[in-house]
Amino acid sequence: MPETLTLYTASVCPYAQRVELALSEAKAPFTRFEVDLQNKPEWYAPKVNPASKVPAIAYGGPQVPPDQPSPESTKIAESLVLLEFVADLYPDSGLLPKDPVLRAKARFFIDAVSNKFNPAFFKFVFRGEGTLDEFVAAIKEIQALLPAEGYVIGPFSIADLALIPFWGRGLVAFENDLGGFAVGEGPKYLEAIKKNPELTRFLKYVDDVTSRPSFKATFVPEVIKARFKERFRSGKA
Amino acid sequence: MPETLTLYTASVCPYAQRVELALSEAKAPFTRFEVDLQNKPEWYAPKVNPASKVPAIAYGGPQVPPDQPSPESTKIAESLVLLEFVADLYPDSGLLPKDPVLRAKARFFIDAVSNKFNPAFFKFVFRGEGTLDEFVAAIKEIQALLPAEGYVIGPFSIADLALIPFWGRGLVAFENDLGGFAVGEGPKYLEAIKKNPELTRFLKYVDDVTSRPSFKATFVPEVIKARFKERFRSGKA
Ligand SMILES: [Ca+2]
Repeated sequence: MPETLTLYTASVCPYAQRVELALSEAKAPFTRFEVDLQNKPEWYAPKVNPASKVPAIAYGGPQVPPDQPSPESTKIAESLVLLEFVADLYPDSGLLPKDPVLRAKARFFIDAVSNKFNPAFFKFVFRGEGTLDEFVAAIKEIQALLPAEGYVIGPFSIADLALIPFWGRGLVAFENDLGGFAVGEGPKYLEAIKKNPELTRFLKYVDDVTSRPSFKATFVPEVIKARFKERFRSGKA
Repeated sequence: MPETLTLYTASVCPYAQRVELALSEAKAPFTRFEVDLQNKPEWYAPKVNPASKVPAIAYGGPQVPPDQPSPESTKIAESLVLLEFVADLYPDSGLLPKDPVLRAKARFFIDAVSNKFNPAFFKFVFRGEGTLDEFVAAIKEIQALLPAEGYVIGPFSIADLALIPFWGRGLVAFENDLGGFAVGEGPKYLEAIKKNPELTRFLKYVDDVTSRPSFKATFVPEVIKARFKERFRSGKA
């Protein structure tokens, strides 16, 4: 029986959404604390996460208000560490099956998201560097790891939580023309991706994941859009 | 009962040594195949690892010679995925305890090795960039995660396998003056590190890990030294 759990998170942050998704999928009871990333509470770094980032979990210890974290709880950070942690706390959730080979496949996919998809995503969507072809190539690398149907390892697992928060933010960026790319390019890029017949499997996959109740409950596009507006378009004349 | 397991590895490669260490600690029976990284067998990428890197494991399927991998075995790559895989195959090895909090601590340390120590290590030791002070700062970040005594999470675990192959290669580089740094600097750097009173805990820790039979059985300094000689000093007049 898991102990008391507080998640320090921010709706804008894709890393944090990974963990919100895992807790939602596991139907885990937890206290959610939204950290204002642009104006962090002064207690956050010293009492929760010295790296001053979200997500972080305070686990165990006495019941306390989330803005008064107890020194007796264990503090854990890093989104991928936390995905495994939630899967370990809820072994019957199916977030990570018991079979060592399936677990390895899930982790290999997560590694590909960290080391192949995300660098290409940040470069193209947030920094406006490189070409659409390069970004599509990274999507294809991920697509090549997907089975013909279903989720990454067949049944739904933490592997399916690694990429989707980033993809969701890409959709917000493209749809609203709010990214590192030139003004006017966003919607064109999105159309080109959606109409690319070589990306059919990937597009079906991300549609499957974003259709789940966990995604709908943890994805707040208005907040992301407002932040992207500040970040990408506020300084431009 | 785990199935048949072949490890594709190379004594020179720190990532591969991580997995050799895990198999050694788990006392796992396996077939070891040394891949010549500078002259890879033509079957290696198509039949074992499309990324053409070591380490990789072929797991299950029929008993076959390692240079004739069966399409029926599962191929798994990426050293950190494989550390978890070995721990999953051998749950009683203690490589990863059952307690979710201890597992998270092990993974957080591994993440710090990947994202803090290793970038500093590659920069300073292999590329000869940055300063000794910067490298020492990265060592201190790792040291700050160590308990007062013992291993990363107390008992020995996969967390202790993440850093040590890199540290071992650093020793070979410094001792033999074979790195990205200027000729003559290696032994001086090593002496400065070993005499630094602020690194006592870290130095005790790496000494504890390198003293284990698993390290002695999987660390081949002559091979590493020969490779570093080619890599760092052969082209210099
Ligand atoms: Ca990584």
